[in-house]
Amino acid sequence: MVASEVRALFAVASRPEVVSLAGGMPNVSALPLDDIARIVQQVVSDQGATALQYGSAQGDPVLREHICEVMAEEEIDAASDDVIVTVGSQQALDLVTRVFVDPGDVVLCEAPTYVTAINTFAAFQADIRHVEMDGDGVVPEALEEALERLAAEGRRVKFFYTIPNFQNPAGVTLSAERRTRVLEICQRHGLLVLEDNPYGLLRYDGEPVAPLRAQAPDSVIYLGSFSKTLSPGFRIGWALAPSAVRAKLVLAAESAMLSHSTFNQMVVRRYLTDHAWREQIKDFNEMYRERRDAMLGALDALMPAGTEWTRPDGGFFVWLTLPEGLDSKAMMPRAVNERVAYVPGTGFYASDEGRRSMRLSFCYPTSEQIREGVRRLVGVIEGETELRDTFGGMSPPAAAGDDSPFPDLP
Amino acid sequence: MVASEVRALFAVASRPEVVSLAGGMPNVSALPLDDIARIVQQVVSDQGATALQYGSAQGDPVLREHICEVMAEEEIDAASDDVIVTVGSQQALDLVTRVFVDPGDVVLCEAPTYVTAINTFAAFQADIRHVEMDGDGVVPEALEEALERLAAEGRRVKFFYTIPNFQNPAGVTLSAERRTRVLEICQRHGLLVLEDNPYGLLRYDGEPVAPLRAQAPDSVIYLGSFSKTLSPGFRIGWALAPSAVRAKLVLAAESAMLSHSTFNQMVVRRYLTDHAWREQIKDFNEMYRERRDAMLGALDALMPAGTEWTRPDGGFFVWLTLPEGLDSKAMMPRAVNERVAYVPGTGFYASDEGRRSMRLSFCYPTSEQIREGVRRLVGVIEGETELRDTFGGMSPPAAAGDDSPFPDLP
Repeated sequence: MVASEVRALFAVASRPEVVSLAGGMPNVSALPLDDIARIVQQVVSDQGATALQYGSAQGDPVLREHICEVMAEEEIDAASDDVIVTVGSQQALDLVTRVFVDPGDVVLCEAPTYVTAINTFAAFQADIRHVEMDGDGVVPEALEEALERLAAEGRRVKFFYTIPNFQNPAGVTLSAERRTRVLEICQRHGLLVLEDNPYGLLRYDGEPVAPLRAQAPDSVIYLGSFSKTLSPGFRIGWALAPSAVRAKLVLAAESAMLSHSTFNQMVVRRYLTDHAWREQIKDFNEMYRERRDAMLGALDALMPAGTEWTRPDGGFFVWLTLPEGLDSKAMMPRAVNERVAYVPGTGFYASDEGRRSMRLSFCYPTSEQIREGVRRLVGVIEGETELRDTFGGMSPPAAAGDDSPFPDLP
Repeated sequence: MVASEVRALFAVASRPEVVSLAGGMPNVSALPLDDIARIVQQVVSDQGATALQYGSAQGDPVLREHICEVMAEEEIDAASDDVIVTVGSQQALDLVTRVFVDPGDVVLCEAPTYVTAINTFAAFQADIRHVEMDGDGVVPEALEEALERLAAEGRRVKFFYTIPNFQNPAGVTLSAERRTRVLEICQRHGLLVLEDNPYGLLRYDGEPVAPLRAQAPDSVIYLGSFSKTLSPGFRIGWALAPSAVRAKLVLAAESAMLSHSTFNQMVVRRYLTDHAWREQIKDFNEMYRERRDAMLGALDALMPAGTEWTRPDGGFFVWLTLPEGLDSKAMMPRAVNERVAYVPGTGFYASDEGRRSMRLSFCYPTSEQIREGVRRLVGVIEGETELRDTFGGMSPPAAAGDDSPFPDLP
């Protein structure tokens, strides 16, 4: 099964009778829609002449001040002058890659990592190398080893891309102790860190761990987003970068889109001023905690032996590894037939890994749907296990003839 | 004076006492703000769960249908499946360049041409070559000659970029007869045309001329925008491309920003459905016609001999050429001191041309401000002419030590 077939399957999977554990869409129906309707109306009524005009490539200065307040919630001390507003943090990823990566340059990232980051790095012809993770995030020794090997080969490494909190897709969090070690290793090798933190404030258990940026302002480009804490519909993300880098990113943004929507920036600005956004995030966290618990509870209760999964303290995703001999991508048609969908693990690797794994999202479906989805998935896995026991391991599907990127939502 | 100094001057020029004939901002205060306030409110109230969610990289299907209706106003017959919604037409320019241009590839464009297009082509390391224009747009013989010369040199030319209607910055329109010849030349050389038409519906005199895309669906990528006919604040532009190209552009858009703002797309959709948008464009045209007439009237009445300018039938811009021996960039500090601003001609060339020229915008200031601005500009030119007659020609300013792109608005 090749990428275009996965796209076709996802189209089928979007039918209402299918429980989708695939997409990473936040549950925006939990938003205070009346308040937001009032806010968008007021922005046009009160500030229309500004809101409907062109803005600057760096983004609205007042919004950038507010963004610094949001980052302060995670112990980041930043100047608004070093913030650039982007079309979701995806555009920030794109601009950073555009500025730093020449064809053939190495980009290090976690194994597995965010699908569309892989696509962006690949679009600029980066040589993408994965670094091993475990339950505490990336393994520092593996990072060090990779850097030493690449240095010995004379390869130019441009940055290390990490999603330290509730990682997409693995759901794991880089421990505080490892953050210090990762930074120490990167600084010793003169390597920039690209820290992507869209889920940081969505923590359901345990104590917050400060972002890497909080410790190392000069060697980290930090990416943030309102897509999960407010709405992806406004497409407001940001990059926080050391000044010299920030200036280059602003020029790249000017070339990429001239300026972001002034209107959307003023809407988010007003939301952050008028609305109790910290309370809203608490409400989100209660809702998502319940859904995560529903997923982990169902997995604990129903999954057959030999299946393993991560236990996220926040974010949207659980990473599940199938019993040996099963293939999550080959299993997809059967799963969709059984009215459950997930994202096969192979999408989260630039290499040919991840066949035994899958990403399960608990952000969008209700707890009841999640339990039903897991039940159906268990049926599929049991059926496949039976097949494996009868006919032996499944042959990996051919991937030739289709080089289009793997489809996904964030 | 180098680019950073021009940026600094533009900052000074944004002070209220300065009449700015520099920026290309549409006059959004002429919009029906009450209607738009109602529309944005309704989109959230009625369709919030969809509008505030992620969308597809290609853009909202219903909006793409509406975009086809807008293009039909200019005799373009298109399928919505071949439309991709972008963050202004600037992002479309960026995506097309990203898909087509490898470092060193030649991109042909008009002389002069849109500043930020130059910056985008340069960002992807294109070799930008200008083709001569006159009062009827690009000169077909010059295009043919350039293509033959480049073919003889074995150079790879990727596309010809043209703004055929009320060109930015020159204000000229490519004649109907020349459109056919330009297409014939490009097709004979197997060359793609990138047609940028943000001002097409803003015609104040004469008969409309159909876009190149209307004649040649298979060899033109067409770019459109709501930034001038509605508002740049929503950042909704589009590309219409032959299917094979469109598919590549969608993948590039996914990598660049995942998806555009669903909310903004639904706002524009509802505006096009609920509001008499054709009437709104007629109102805009009356307003802009009056402003253009104010500018041409003042230029006719006041400009000293030896100064020349174009007479646009639409759009936002007049291109003015100074008497010999004067330098528009060197003159900028004096002009800002006299409380008038313009964009020096050099910004509109990848080469070192345009020193005697400048772009004057009549879109944003009122007719009265325009007349006062021209009066001040005449004073500056007379002063510079006197200096020239006393001390001889001014030496061209050094441009070394600053390679940042020239600043501008569209």
